[in-house]
Amino acid sequence: MYEKILYPTDFSDEATKALEFIKELKGAGAKEVIILHVIDRRGLNDLARFAKKDIPHIIGDMETRTRSELSPVVNELEESGLKVKIRIEKGGPCDEILRVADEENASIIIAGSHGKSNIDNMLLGSVSYKLVKRANLPILVVKK
Amino acid sequence: MYEKILYPTDFSDEATKALEFIKELKGAGAKEVIILHVIDRRGLNDLARFAKKDIPHIIGDMETRTRSELSPVVNELEESGLKVKIRIEKGGPCDEILRVADEENASIIIAGSHGKSNIDNMLLGSVSYKLVKRANLPILVVKK
Repeated sequence: MYEKILYPTDFSDEATKALEFIKELKGAGAKEVIILHVIDRRGLNDLARFAKKDIPHIIGDMETRTRSELSPVVNELEESGLKVKIRIEKGGPCDEILRVADEENASIIIAGSHGKSNIDNMLLGSVSYKLVKRANLPILVVKK
Repeated sequence: MYEKILYPTDFSDEATKALEFIKELKGAGAKEVIILHVIDRRGLNDLARFAKKDIPHIIGDMETRTRSELSPVVNELEESGLKVKIRIEKGGPCDEILRVADEENASIIIAGSHGKSNIDNMLLGSVSYKLVKRANLPILVVKK
């Protein structure tokens, strides 16, 4: 039921808080955590208009930085006895989260309630809100 | 984190499935479950137009029937080692769930993704969807 957890993170406070709820689930049968960070394609598209040739280099940098930022998160989860896998994807956050959930056959999604771009969220509806509508697996939304 | 669970139920399939996710949380620190059934005020208002004097009697009947329907649920949770409390309230489902969550100082809400009245949900947005927007505590939404 809680065996394979998909944990999308954008390093927001809510995503960090969600981590506490994940670690606690070890006692409820959790075995593995897929940490997912999505590099938002909208940001890349904006960038492409004036620096197209630099995109592959910039994405490479982003991936390296993301892996290094995730390193303490991985340690924390592993210390709680959970197996950990990192996935870094490019695209729309909601679409990518649902695609990876399906691909990895996740049992549950555990996410923070808001992403970092709060103005966007207020206008467009937050990612977690969209996930609750579209996901066909259980989703735990953690608030600040 | 999972200590005091608020479990709103309208006896839908999704609400019944949510029960499995609750029992499993015993190992993650769950101690008590508040089972909440809300008698929807909208239904009562409709009824009041042609049978106002029968309302108290009808509500009494509804409460008795609800308690008897909840009895196997209570047994199931108690057998999993959880303390159980029943609350039956009248009003708007979302408002009542949030009021009781606050009053009981719940740590988390665990709910099915859809109520029984699916046409209503499609038009108005499901209760769980509204809860995710309005609640200031974590909420686990369980899908069918």
